[in-house]
Amino acid sequence: MTDTQAPAQPGTGDMAGLSRRSLLRAGLLTGGAAAGAGLVSRSALAGDPLITEVQDWNRYLGDSVQAAPYGKPSEFEAHVVRRDVEWLTASPESSVNFTPLHELDGIITPNGLCFERHHGGVAQINPADHRLMIHGLVDKPLVFTMEDLKRFPRENRVYFLECAANSGMEWRGAQLNGCQYTHGMIHCVVYTGVPLKYLLNEAGVKTSGKWLLAEGADASAMTRSIPMEKALDDCLVAFKMNGEALRPEQGYPVRLVVPGWEGNMWVKWLRRLEVGDQPWEQREETSKYTDLLANGKARRFTWVMDVKSVITSPSPQAPVAHGKGPLVISGVAWSGNGTVQRVDVSIDGGRNWKTARIDGPSLSKAMHRFYLDIDWDGSPLLLQSRAMDEQGFVQPTKNELRLARGDNSIYHNNGIQTWHVKADGTVENVEVA
Amino acid sequence: MTDTQAPAQPGTGDMAGLSRRSLLRAGLLTGGAAAGAGLVSRSALAGDPLITEVQDWNRYLGDSVQAAPYGKPSEFEAHVVRRDVEWLTASPESSVNFTPLHELDGIITPNGLCFERHHGGVAQINPADHRLMIHGLVDKPLVFTMEDLKRFPRENRVYFLECAANSGMEWRGAQLNGCQYTHGMIHCVVYTGVPLKYLLNEAGVKTSGKWLLAEGADASAMTRSIPMEKALDDCLVAFKMNGEALRPEQGYPVRLVVPGWEGNMWVKWLRRLEVGDQPWEQREETSKYTDLLANGKARRFTWVMDVKSVITSPSPQAPVAHGKGPLVISGVAWSGNGTVQRVDVSIDGGRNWKTARIDGPSLSKAMHRFYLDIDWDGSPLLLQSRAMDEQGFVQPTKNELRLARGDNSIYHNNGIQTWHVKADGTVENVEVA
Repeated sequence: MTDTQAPAQPGTGDMAGLSRRSLLRAGLLTGGAAAGAGLVSRSALAGDPLITEVQDWNRYLGDSVQAAPYGKPSEFEAHVVRRDVEWLTASPESSVNFTPLHELDGIITPNGLCFERHHGGVAQINPADHRLMIHGLVDKPLVFTMEDLKRFPRENRVYFLECAANSGMEWRGAQLNGCQYTHGMIHCVVYTGVPLKYLLNEAGVKTSGKWLLAEGADASAMTRSIPMEKALDDCLVAFKMNGEALRPEQGYPVRLVVPGWEGNMWVKWLRRLEVGDQPWEQREETSKYTDLLANGKARRFTWVMDVKSVITSPSPQAPVAHGKGPLVISGVAWSGNGTVQRVDVSIDGGRNWKTARIDGPSLSKAMHRFYLDIDWDGSPLLLQSRAMDEQGFVQPTKNELRLARGDNSIYHNNGIQTWHVKADGTVENVEVA
Repeated sequence: MTDTQAPAQPGTGDMAGLSRRSLLRAGLLTGGAAAGAGLVSRSALAGDPLITEVQDWNRYLGDSVQAAPYGKPSEFEAHVVRRDVEWLTASPESSVNFTPLHELDGIITPNGLCFERHHGGVAQINPADHRLMIHGLVDKPLVFTMEDLKRFPRENRVYFLECAANSGMEWRGAQLNGCQYTHGMIHCVVYTGVPLKYLLNEAGVKTSGKWLLAEGADASAMTRSIPMEKALDDCLVAFKMNGEALRPEQGYPVRLVVPGWEGNMWVKWLRRLEVGDQPWEQREETSKYTDLLANGKARRFTWVMDVKSVITSPSPQAPVAHGKGPLVISGVAWSGNGTVQRVDVSIDGGRNWKTARIDGPSLSKAMHRFYLDIDWDGSPLLLQSRAMDEQGFVQPTKNELRLARGDNSIYHNNGIQTWHVKADGTVENVEVA
């Protein structure tokens, strides 16, 4: 294998190296074909015992369309939910639950499965009562109702949102048992909102205004300092996600979108924007969301979420059930610096790499979906993925990160993840030297 | 106004002709600013009575993250649901409900709000029991389990799905009271699935195999004939939508995706694919889904959903609540022929046109979102949108369609829709001569 191979383009019809012979050799279809031949000889005329036996749904009327004005997943998908780690936090209000990445595909996270992280619980806000204030070093302080905000030109953008602490416990080798827990503090949706620069321009930022304080209307009154350059660049004041209103746990009725930067800055239930001439040194940017180095000093204002990826299937929660033969290796990659240019996958713990196929839209600061389609010979695998972004940054190993920053860090772990696929198809979270 | 203006590019920071002066003149922000000044003078120090008064959510702990393993919309969004038209169908199983387009933005429809159209109700299928059979003019008949399908290389694509009967009642001037009912038999999601050509190649289509019959496992055993050229082009056998499993009402566990073609062909609960040498002349392609012309002959095999658009706000269900001044006119456009190249909007019933701003990803056979940001002078408007696709097709008027096809048609109405915005902001569905 080589790491210089160009990625296959989506939609070319190339079966990514899977020959028909290989599929037959793998035993995937010969059994099916035999059964199929049996089925066909009868079912083309009179139907097949196997199928009629299980086809109650084909013999009786189904459910009414009026049963679900707002639809829900199938009862057979009841296991596909966000999950928290009860022992991780002191209270369920200041807590977190995780996106089930191992059950998802593509690049869009459905709203019902977007991870949550709160510091004071989920505020339940009536949008008619909500206000957004802009004040401080501005010509004209302003207060906006939700109706006011919806009269400005709006934009739609697909962005990932990753908590700075995503994969944080892996820094010290916790080896949590599944990508939902190791990497599930991320989601990616389409945001609809007003570019923040339009609102700041309405208020008229004074030349001395270099920083912005964003404050949430929840019980923690979450506050973060944001440099004016970012505020005037690509930030959005968003009121919709994936076409519908923001979910309560995502800041309904309005949140700040800070593309590519750590999720804690995407202030939910946004109530106040203050313009100042220096950062505010709030708790969430001093005692929290800084990176304590080995020498006792701390990295601060480490806002950008660096290039990162993880294989979502196979993974500890998504073992290989079908034995050897054709195996779809799938995962997600993202970078706060822009688009992901390439993802390489190793099945031998990083000794050899093969370029994966990135499929679907490749959008700046959005999740990317990659696949490597292989014939699994049934021997154990050490699966890794390594992403590279448009600025040339390459995802490091966990040990490279530890050498650079010591063992104290919790935030900004974008190290390469390793899954050990055993001969029986079960998968473990491991580290390779 | 002119119809030759180039569309503004998204993200340029251009406020699409809205000057700050115009916003102030419109009275949008002067009131807010006055209130804001009042707020700021106190709240920067001690908080503001108005805000503290309504800020229970700022004083008490919010909801637990464990409250919603699968999230739901805010209680304040309870009105945003699919709605049926009870008098329209004989039974709730063979019926339809509608996407609330007037409440949505962007190009992705959330899974819970995708319209439904069934002929025998919603089949509730256990994926472990489901099978997909390929037989007929093939070298090797095959039967696939869901696990088998997930071992083939897969793709992710954003496509709109429109029922051929969308806007059908408008053909004869029903003038239903809102775009949810006139245009709501459409949704647009990200599909994840296996290219159909991979499965057909596994079975080995004989040279005499020119047509495909797709059959559903629901009570209506929906069946449609599809030409082999389309089957081998861009069709998908899809098992996920917007990242998660298909919803039951969208064909869980597996449906056919036939990009750009009428929704009835996107067979849900897909159980059988038969290869033949001619179309099967099934009920759904002879007595239904054909277009009876004035001369008594019927157009058939009219598969492509032609270029179309509709303004979603303002619209009868989304009146203008804020009076004159800055007004965001928003809508969606799509074409079964590829991308939408341009959308023009008229506020005077089609006498003058202005090119709208298409915002967000522009993807082939996917929904496009457009905006026209205007200063409304408060006088009545006759709103229309007219889309043009990459093949140069232009959306016709309803009367042009009637002249060409007579008054009998129900399907394939892609005529221009007119909304009458009155001085009080209420909106009516009207037709202009």
